[in-house]
Amino acid sequence: MQEKINTPRRRVLAAAGAAAAWAGMSTVARADSTEPAAQSNPQPVSDAKPLPDYAKWKDANSLIVHSANTIETQRGAVGSSVITPLNRLFIRNNVSPPPAGITDNPDAWQINIEGVRKPHTFTLAQLKDMGLQALPMVLQCSGNGRAYFPHKPGGTQWTVGAAGCVIFTGVPIATLVEALGGVQDGMVYMTGTGGEEIPAGLDPNSVRVERSVPLEAMKDAILAWEVNGEPLPLAHGGPLRLIVPGYTGVNNVKYVKQLAFTKAQSPASIQQNSYRFSAVGEKGGPQHESIWEMPPKSWITSPSSPDTSLKAGPVVIGGVAMGGMDSPSKIEVSIDGGKSWQEARFVGPDLGKYAWRQFAFTADLKPGRYNLASRTTNAAGQTQPAERAENNRGYNNNSWQDHMVEINVTS
Amino acid sequence: MQEKINTPRRRVLAAAGAAAAWAGMSTVARADSTEPAAQSNPQPVSDAKPLPDYAKWKDANSLIVHSANTIETQRGAVGSSVITPLNRLFIRNNVSPPPAGITDNPDAWQINIEGVRKPHTFTLAQLKDMGLQALPMVLQCSGNGRAYFPHKPGGTQWTVGAAGCVIFTGVPIATLVEALGGVQDGMVYMTGTGGEEIPAGLDPNSVRVERSVPLEAMKDAILAWEVNGEPLPLAHGGPLRLIVPGYTGVNNVKYVKQLAFTKAQSPASIQQNSYRFSAVGEKGGPQHESIWEMPPKSWITSPSSPDTSLKAGPVVIGGVAMGGMDSPSKIEVSIDGGKSWQEARFVGPDLGKYAWRQFAFTADLKPGRYNLASRTTNAAGQTQPAERAENNRGYNNNSWQDHMVEINVTS
Repeated sequence: MQEKINTPRRRVLAAAGAAAAWAGMSTVARADSTEPAAQSNPQPVSDAKPLPDYAKWKDANSLIVHSANTIETQRGAVGSSVITPLNRLFIRNNVSPPPAGITDNPDAWQINIEGVRKPHTFTLAQLKDMGLQALPMVLQCSGNGRAYFPHKPGGTQWTVGAAGCVIFTGVPIATLVEALGGVQDGMVYMTGTGGEEIPAGLDPNSVRVERSVPLEAMKDAILAWEVNGEPLPLAHGGPLRLIVPGYTGVNNVKYVKQLAFTKAQSPASIQQNSYRFSAVGEKGGPQHESIWEMPPKSWITSPSSPDTSLKAGPVVIGGVAMGGMDSPSKIEVSIDGGKSWQEARFVGPDLGKYAWRQFAFTADLKPGRYNLASRTTNAAGQTQPAERAENNRGYNNNSWQDHMVEINVTS
Repeated sequence: MQEKINTPRRRVLAAAGAAAAWAGMSTVARADSTEPAAQSNPQPVSDAKPLPDYAKWKDANSLIVHSANTIETQRGAVGSSVITPLNRLFIRNNVSPPPAGITDNPDAWQINIEGVRKPHTFTLAQLKDMGLQALPMVLQCSGNGRAYFPHKPGGTQWTVGAAGCVIFTGVPIATLVEALGGVQDGMVYMTGTGGEEIPAGLDPNSVRVERSVPLEAMKDAILAWEVNGEPLPLAHGGPLRLIVPGYTGVNNVKYVKQLAFTKAQSPASIQQNSYRFSAVGEKGGPQHESIWEMPPKSWITSPSSPDTSLKAGPVVIGGVAMGGMDSPSKIEVSIDGGKSWQEARFVGPDLGKYAWRQFAFTADLKPGRYNLASRTTNAAGQTQPAERAENNRGYNNNSWQDHMVEINVTS
């Protein structure tokens, strides 16, 4: 169900007071919600595109299929159990995936490690005996929230669902590098190269998915062969993916076939020109900041639709909060479009600084219209801003205004 | 792939020394394992039973189907990402599940709460607005490990796979009880009743799935409508399940339609006679201890098969460790059948005291045969024992000897 796009300035017809705690049978007896709850599968809309073959195993009713390479999770479909189910996780491929056969024998996949003292090629089977780490983290497309930019940037019109919290498992890159004698002197970047096939006759740099991140990102990065306990599927970069926690999705190179420590950033266009923070109307280039680290961000997932209609009474407002490069440490909820805020509580386990936390806030709502907003602060003291940072391609939108949900409460 | 049953006394042809850390290219260059790794899907055996209709969505290649109501996860199929994927999670139904239609409109499901000052019937939709908690925990059948009992107790011959670590999400029972005025005076047990249909003409107590647990178990218990981020499927007790963390599977009543605080334990046979700790050869009855809390336990999941054959060199030995009612705080691994032990490291996030943790231990193995064992100690200082506690029906086996894995390492 494609959501109506929220605009940052919306009419607030009613603003209720503080959240009510349970106060006896009068509240217990309230009528049911007339909308399906977030945990129910929303119905697919009639004009929904079909899932592509490589992602046929996904739950279509939980997704918005923008194209064969861009598939979004519906706002209410992430559940309340912290980890996003794989069959509901978004997909964003920069180019079409390699043939599905590459995941038939994952242990045979090879990766070259370059820019270390002893460059070496490993099979995935060998990597599995070199170390093990399980890394809970938010995977989020750089363009998540693009649909809320008023200048209508080109690219997929993601709302909130190009993000999920999953557990990637693999070998720490620091362990590999240590075994290979360390990084060569003078290297500044860690550069991953994807295994996509490059059509003959094209300049490889125009299509190659090759991304460079600062060397310091190596610290917590892994080469992953598993996600949420299953062998990494092709749809998410299997058999092997470079995982750089805290960095936007594109930096987590799929079907990674080379990991190189380099003096310069990759010459590929996806590094030089795309994923750059340039002013609206200005084409991106090497002179602009690269889209790497994610900022703190939160959004409400339940109630989950702008036209949600509820009966008056207590309602649990739930959502997700991520801290970017530091843990989310505080989460506030507003039911009056950001005029006033109250602290909500985190729900469920803390999976570490790169994961999101889910939150809940019980509000006792009288009839009226409400703009529900959430705002998180991370352990480094960074608070999610009201306004988005404008940029040409619509990256890294973490404005709390843009992500509000409007609901209608009836008597 | 049904595993060969390990026996507690096995021949050890070779015993290597301490685990080797990475020491340069000589180890990096070791040959690949000739066995598929634990993360790969094992192949189904030719005589495998089909999945029943209500569980057709599961990954048959990761499971052992004992019967339509008893389905086990293969030892190597739990992955290394802490959370067990739902499509690989075991199933154990005491009687056949209710019609699948009960999960079509989960919000309409009703549950009576009795034995409180203000007894009340809630719909699931109402429960969703009363509170939210996400609870990571080990779900384990009381009979997991039964196959290792030498007296061959009746019942499903589970080895290690009637267990998984999942996140259940729902409303805390303590919150409900508070809203309903508290538990009535004199109540000693919390009794959940399953929604299975009872065939006409039968004594309901002979088939009803109704379990009582001590009142103190209410503290962390929830009524759950979600597992691992998805609406609770029928196969795992959806639309609503009583979740009593730390207690064996049967106490987590599926399709729960009544929760009552009671003075006595349920008169149902499943409470009075089954799930009792009686001496071998002695039928269970109310005079015997009920199977409630789980003890600390661990087992190796990779290498995952008793006849695993590996090439010499470093190998990552991985597994799971649960603490029962307290966090697992220590995990040791032996490669010589328990003669000597070395501390292994926990891998991935700590999801709280009721969850398991995964562990890894790198051993540099020379050619020979090895008996791999693991032994955990929980925060209360309880250590997993060498010997099982013998009992007639083969419950709560946590012997580290019984759960060893034998491997063959070749040059």
